[in-house]
Amino acid sequence: MGEFWPLQMVFQASLLLMHRWAEQNVNPALFPRELMANASDLVMDEEVSYNPQILLKKAHAATSSIGSATVIIAMLEKSGTLKIANVGDCGLRILRKGQVVFSTAPQEHFFDCPYQLSSELIGQTYRDATLCSVELTEGDTIVMGSDGLFDNVFDHEIVSVISKIQNAVEAAKALAELASNHSVDTTFDSPYALEARNMGFDVPWWQRILGKKLTGGKLDDITVIVGQVIRASID
Amino acid sequence: MGEFWPLQMVFQASLLLMHRWAEQNVNPALFPRELMANASDLVMDEEVSYNPQILLKKAHAATSSIGSATVIIAMLEKSGTLKIANVGDCGLRILRKGQVVFSTAPQEHFFDCPYQLSSELIGQTYRDATLCSVELTEGDTIVMGSDGLFDNVFDHEIVSVISKIQNAVEAAKALAELASNHSVDTTFDSPYALEARNMGFDVPWWQRILGKKLTGGKLDDITVIVGQVIRASID
Repeated sequence: MGEFWPLQMVFQASLLLMHRWAEQNVNPALFPRELMANASDLVMDEEVSYNPQILLKKAHAATSSIGSATVIIAMLEKSGTLKIANVGDCGLRILRKGQVVFSTAPQEHFFDCPYQLSSELIGQTYRDATLCSVELTEGDTIVMGSDGLFDNVFDHEIVSVISKIQNAVEAAKALAELASNHSVDTTFDSPYALEARNMGFDVPWWQRILGKKLTGGKLDDITVIVGQVIRASID
Repeated sequence: MGEFWPLQMVFQASLLLMHRWAEQNVNPALFPRELMANASDLVMDEEVSYNPQILLKKAHAATSSIGSATVIIAMLEKSGTLKIANVGDCGLRILRKGQVVFSTAPQEHFFDCPYQLSSELIGQTYRDATLCSVELTEGDTIVMGSDGLFDNVFDHEIVSVISKIQNAVEAAKALAELASNHSVDTTFDSPYALEARNMGFDVPWWQRILGKKLTGGKLDDITVIVGQVIRASID
């Protein structure tokens, strides 16, 4: 088996921030952007040593903006091991032979309130990250996204899009468009609506006995990254 | 941080076997039982070297019974890394601070036809296993089960049971009982029914316009293992 080239995917996903940042006249995009720029700069840092949790720690420590963000970092080693550190409700799926064979789980304090790295002491740190890894093989597709993707698009829809569109950039665009369309569709029975009902949120009882239920997508920022695992030729 | 003691959890989960074994007068329990007995014997084998995929390979090679089985193997290293090899539709969840922070994904050829290791050449091998690992911390709960558990019990129900029952054996019994009750409840909107509807299976259209939908649990063998991660004192 040949070697994989390293593929660093450093990824700030959800821009869903605590409302108080906007209330306090803080641009909520500043913190996640700086955090991810720092992570990107530090990817090849010796001390990071291909450990996404240490990358998270150093990138967070280097960030001076005010704000907070959920974050997922995935680093693919030459051996084919994808190492993942996840804080909050971003997500990652591995698709193989037409099915999702690996999926991250979101971290929330309670429904719709995700773990976040923050400029403040009250937030989470790299120690709160869920750390896992998965062995990839040639032909695998990696789909990473913010909760704006996974709250609006089911896994079977992601499988369907990926099986139809080979090009990674086009597939990412199609997924983002699908998520965007669902997010404004009040009749769509989205993953978000399903989860909300599971958590006990629903329409009033007199609407329920008329056969109605809580539906609709979730209006949110949407970020999608699609990667294809290929075996690199060794020069 | 202290050391974890090694915890080998070798686990034959689903007894959902191809019907042809019964038709051919083959006891469908023989293959999975022998496979798991072999895996258990080989856990400390030097060549296995704490690699669940190699354990799967060697256990499968040593099995002479006729039959097939889905299988999941999880091995906890002293460092706290849980290494998982999964073929088919068994599952594993990690619960931390009242939420599922890690979950395996089932492998199926198509709806309700899982990947299986087999005595025949047509089945899957250790090469088809999904391989992943997750870093555990003290207080984590590991829930492993056959599809009989995960087709009948939602993750939020698992969280609810685990949060109420501290004792691992009692929690496993409670989960198995819940799965069993749901499996014979034709009105319960189970994970299995939900997945079936997602795959396009449902009641006829004239029942749908009357507000009916495909519901019910899934009658199946149910296996549940619950483990609590504790820090061992070092003598």
